Amino acid sequence: MARILTGIQSSGRPHLGNILGAIQPAIELSKNPENESFFFIADLHSLITIKNGQERAEYVRAIAATWLAFGFDVSTNVFWRQSRIQEHAELAWYLSCFTPFPMLANATSYKEKSEKLADVNAGLFTYPVLQAADILLYNANIVPVGKDQKQHLEMTKDIASRFNAAAGEDILVLPEPLIDERVMTVPGIDGQKMSKSYHNYIDIFLPENELKKVIKKIVSDSTPLEEPKDPESDITFKLYSLVASAEDVETMRRNYLNGGYGYGHAKQALFECMLEKYAEPRRIFNYYMENRAELENILIEGEAKAREIARETVAKVRKILGFAS
Amino acid sequence: MARILTGIQSSGRPHLGNILGAIQPAIELSKNPENESFFFIADLHSLITIKNGQERAEYVRAIAATWLAFGFDVSTNVFWRQSRIQEHAELAWYLSCFTPFPMLANATSYKEKSEKLADVNAGLFTYPVLQAADILLYNANIVPVGKDQKQHLEMTKDIASRFNAAAGEDILVLPEPLIDERVMTVPGIDGQKMSKSYHNYIDIFLPENELKKVIKKIVSDSTPLEEPKDPESDITFKLYSLVASAEDVETMRRNYLNGGYGYGHAKQALFECMLEKYAEPRRIFNYYMENRAELENILIEGEAKAREIARETVAKVRKILGFAS
Repeated sequence: MARILTGIQSSGRPHLGNILGAIQPAIELSKNPENESFFFIADLHSLITIKNGQERAEYVRAIAATWLAFGFDVSTNVFWRQSRIQEHAELAWYLSCFTPFPMLANATSYKEKSEKLADVNAGLFTYPVLQAADILLYNANIVPVGKDQKQHLEMTKDIASRFNAAAGEDILVLPEPLIDERVMTVPGIDGQKMSKSYHNYIDIFLPENELKKVIKKIVSDSTPLEEPKDPESDITFKLYSLVASAEDVETMRRNYLNGGYGYGHAKQALFECMLEKYAEPRRIFNYYMENRAELENILIEGEAKAREIARETVAKVRKILGFAS
Repeated sequence: MARILTGIQSSGRPHLGNILGAIQPAIELSKNPENESFFFIADLHSLITIKNGQERAEYVRAIAATWLAFGFDVSTNVFWRQSRIQEHAELAWYLSCFTPFPMLANATSYKEKSEKLADVNAGLFTYPVLQAADILLYNANIVPVGKDQKQHLEMTKDIASRFNAAAGEDILVLPEPLIDERVMTVPGIDGQKMSKSYHNYIDIFLPENELKKVIKKIVSDSTPLEEPKDPESDITFKLYSLVASAEDVETMRRNYLNGGYGYGHAKQALFECMLEKYAEPRRIFNYYMENRAELENILIEGEAKAREIARETVAKVRKILGFAS
């Protein structure tokens, strides 16, 4: 049985790109009874960029509600907020004393920003160490990562090896990356990759009229309604093909090629498809956003499970380091 | 009432230089009923340099026993091990996200080592942030520091100001340094400043025969026994004048100037003076080193008091940052 650990960014409400590209695949993986999935909301990491507390709290709730909305089973897996387990920051300190400065200075996440050092905070610089703690606390075997995060996982392994070498014992479990090569790229409403930072995302949990407005803003060319259109180059069609059934996609393709079918029609079809497809997730999402105490209780239960494991790891580390009583 | 906070290095057993230069003055300060003294053993910081757990645990016990041996009153003050309060590392993470990278890169403690970056660990680089957390957790007003630590205290104030500005509220108390200008320099047995790193220190808690051996090693010139000697340039005399009564020092000075008094005599007098002067601290020190459970209980009681205050501060910080439930 492999223990799979995933940290979930909490720097915004999840959008369609996150859902199709990360959340649904991760939930699929978690349904395999041979796996044990550990998912945490990386709200400590979010402090690097988000200083507003209300904003962060709102994002964290929305993220938790999204995972539940898409059927993540908290009874068989473990789900928690990083900030609720003090052992993350504690282990990060221990590990920082086993992390060579040049390793952090070589991290791409830092180097990308290093031309404007005044804007870099110490959290950004050291976050690979916190990330190592996140992973090593739970003895994770497998960490699904995008290619951009592969370097950080190598750093985690390196730090763990240095700790184990100093301890003379294999206290920390070295994780392996799981790199998903089939990266699904979801276009934003402007055709670039859908991303919070590009402000081109579709939030599927918006109220109907707002969702409709966003979909209407999807960029299209100016081909007149009556003329045939190229489905492959159109953003609305691309998005539709990611959410609609194969049959419906084929129908829309023919409509595009035949002409007499406008982008407005396509957008209306995309809107209706989303409402229908995501009716149940929208209902569950709204339920948890309104019933905060219930959501909180689910997280607290997950946190109790996570904390137990985190404490065991930290107890072993403290014993080796002479911090035990 | 001022709250005075002092972190105690735990990178070795306290020696005579530490006792005369730091421990006794700090204990004097703590006896002023207008002050409230918070003393902690900085064992998290010690991980930057000491990786051996047994060594660290032994040092921590010896440091705690030394403070008790010199009369530190744990009933009116607060005394704890940093590593027992998870809030130190937790607050350090929060603060690191408010600490500009260039501030840390300018710290003298880092710059001194930056020519051999491969030997610098991330803990050394970020330790001013942990130090800021140590101070700010307890709302300390006054932090007695040596001149070399003044920069770190300025960093603490800067980080706290940045946090308060982001919070729009004065959550963290800005501390002021207390710089003791009367720096007492205690010579080591080779005449350089007494320091663990120079291996020239006198451990006053050694068994009698070992203490005698160390004192015999104090460097002296080769003036024959019968000739007059210069007390001012002799290390044994300097050490004697730091521990003996004014009258006894005067007697030894005359003996030096008269001749017929050898360095061996002076060393024997220093040895006897130390045994007598430190008889009670030696007894208490040995008692606590043998009765570990009792020492542990004293620390645990102090930790309960410290934890309560640390938790209050972290609760306020978490609320501002949106981490509260």
